[in-house]
Amino acid sequence: MNEKNDLLLRALRGEYTERPPVWMMRQAGRYLPDYIKLREKYSFFERCSTPELAAEITIQPVEQVGVDAAIIFSDILVVPKAMGMEVQILEGKGPLLPEPIKQYTDLDKLRIPDPDQSLGYVFDALRLTKSRLNGRVPLIGFAGAPWTLLCYMVQGKGSKTFDEARAFCFTQPETAHRLLQMITDTTIAYLKGQVAAGADVVQVFDSWGGLLSPDDFETFSLQYSRQIVAALKDECLTILFAKGAWFALESMSQTGAHGLGLDWCISPQLARKLAGDQVTLQGNFDPARLLGPIPSIQKEVRKMIRSFGSHRYIANLGHGILPNVPVDHARAFVDTVKEWALAEKEHNTPA
Amino acid sequence: MNEKNDLLLRALRGEYTERPPVWMMRQAGRYLPDYIKLREKYSFFERCSTPELAAEITIQPVEQVGVDAAIIFSDILVVPKAMGMEVQILEGKGPLLPEPIKQYTDLDKLRIPDPDQSLGYVFDALRLTKSRLNGRVPLIGFAGAPWTLLCYMVQGKGSKTFDEARAFCFTQPETAHRLLQMITDTTIAYLKGQVAAGADVVQVFDSWGGLLSPDDFETFSLQYSRQIVAALKDECLTILFAKGAWFALESMSQTGAHGLGLDWCISPQLARKLAGDQVTLQGNFDPARLLGPIPSIQKEVRKMIRSFGSHRYIANLGHGILPNVPVDHARAFVDTVKEWALAEKEHNTPA
Repeated sequence: MNEKNDLLLRALRGEYTERPPVWMMRQAGRYLPDYIKLREKYSFFERCSTPELAAEITIQPVEQVGVDAAIIFSDILVVPKAMGMEVQILEGKGPLLPEPIKQYTDLDKLRIPDPDQSLGYVFDALRLTKSRLNGRVPLIGFAGAPWTLLCYMVQGKGSKTFDEARAFCFTQPETAHRLLQMITDTTIAYLKGQVAAGADVVQVFDSWGGLLSPDDFETFSLQYSRQIVAALKDECLTILFAKGAWFALESMSQTGAHGLGLDWCISPQLARKLAGDQVTLQGNFDPARLLGPIPSIQKEVRKMIRSFGSHRYIANLGHGILPNVPVDHARAFVDTVKEWALAEKEHNTPA
Repeated sequence: MNEKNDLLLRALRGEYTERPPVWMMRQAGRYLPDYIKLREKYSFFERCSTPELAAEITIQPVEQVGVDAAIIFSDILVVPKAMGMEVQILEGKGPLLPEPIKQYTDLDKLRIPDPDQSLGYVFDALRLTKSRLNGRVPLIGFAGAPWTLLCYMVQGKGSKTFDEARAFCFTQPETAHRLLQMITDTTIAYLKGQVAAGADVVQVFDSWGGLLSPDDFETFSLQYSRQIVAALKDECLTILFAKGAWFALESMSQTGAHGLGLDWCISPQLARKLAGDQVTLQGNFDPARLLGPIPSIQKEVRKMIRSFGSHRYIANLGHGILPNVPVDHARAFVDTVKEWALAEKEHNTPA
């Protein structure tokens, strides 16, 4: 094991890595007993906005599960909050934005904030985490894609299909585009601030990109994520993860993003074919598989790495880790990736 | 307009149609004022299980919106109910199965029912509807795909991602496969009964197929839907709709199904390329677009038909119609398809 583990950075740059780096979306939180203890004492926004707590939570999976990267503990909805919306995170129930955007005049209530003023707590958390990590592993910052943030800002809460948000785009396209551009401008400044505060990599989460038709994804999502990637890609390494938007893998590979995240509903072979070989792929273990027995986790992880190949590849889940995953199952996932080169040698040696 | 409109049947057989047939998933219900009146008087299962009511609701969109087919008013969860599970449909809240399947011994509580005994009310509704339709349009029967029914039977309620159902398959594959086979056997007998009662076409709804990886979709879903299609395809016309399972379009085209349903997250061109030209495609208008202004509905519908082409194609939504769609918007969708040949002639005539 390297003292300074830069596997993730090398994989994103397309350099040789002796094995794929591994981390897990939502690795900080939920399933970790030490996190659950903090959750009992502090509200969600207290945990996010207190640098001591956020740094502690961010580092927990590095120390306890052995991942190759830390991702700052925060939430994509800090951006709508900084823009002036009320955002509540209800424990176990998800987000609630009690005054969603319904019409053009509602945009007057929003602002494009100075991130140092309204999101400084995230930068403080990044700086503290960076210092505590002391180079052990890279630090990932993140933000929601403008389309995904619009979903919450218009629908006001979680949804299976965000029908109201889609209908909003179709009935009031002008308002939608103005809102998307406001979110984009805020996000660019916010992510630049994250890089200045120590993020080595930033990931843009488009959790609801797959709810749009291919044409509408380009119109209401990708043209904005593309601006974000373009503004960041020379300042840091970038990963774009649009869940369900397999149909846009080719377009996304041309944004300049160093990495593309994948959910579990696409085969590694097809993902590579669509994305080409000039971008690093990240994913795509079905998170529900971590609830299965450890030997089956090990077998499926090896199969996944063989399918992706170990070059330009980052092992991860296809979505966030589930709250009820036993810690030793998460560790089995990580360890199997770490032992991959050895296991593969055995696999290829005739008995 | 034909007095006996068999456009849907001809499109599914791959025969020439002067224009694409059109119907809408969930066309019977929700957005229709006459339906809403009945909903205020009768519970969901009363509406399903009273042939007079079910027939009336089934025929409403034929008479009020002018669709080219009727689809029997029912619910996919009548099958778990007939198998012995308690199923509640909570108005505006979705389904609740208070005693979900958790382990192998829970299967002992289930039976493979005689459909005439426990689902006879659906057959009665089909017979009455068939007689009242008097050949005006074809009648569609339906059932849920085994995987989708397992989702509800294991999770016990609706979910964005049915994590518990997926985890159940990974942790208890033997139990999952036995349950899936029980559902499959029940469904085959049920759909054969629907055909005997007058259904010209049956559609298998795999609403949650797209939550599985391509390999798991084959293992836990398609191998069962394939049995259903094989058992029915010589008795009636069949449509398989696996929402989100674009990755399996090629495999699904080889099941022998006459038609494949598509959600809105795939381009018509790619769908045709993956499915080949020996199967009829059905879809795939984004249901949220019906909330937009009528001129934009008309424009997008024409674009959709041009992309699919009018041969071996059935115009439909990519998922169920939304409850808040104005009736005249639904009618605009249907009318635009009906006027397509004329509109296309104008489109292609140089000014």
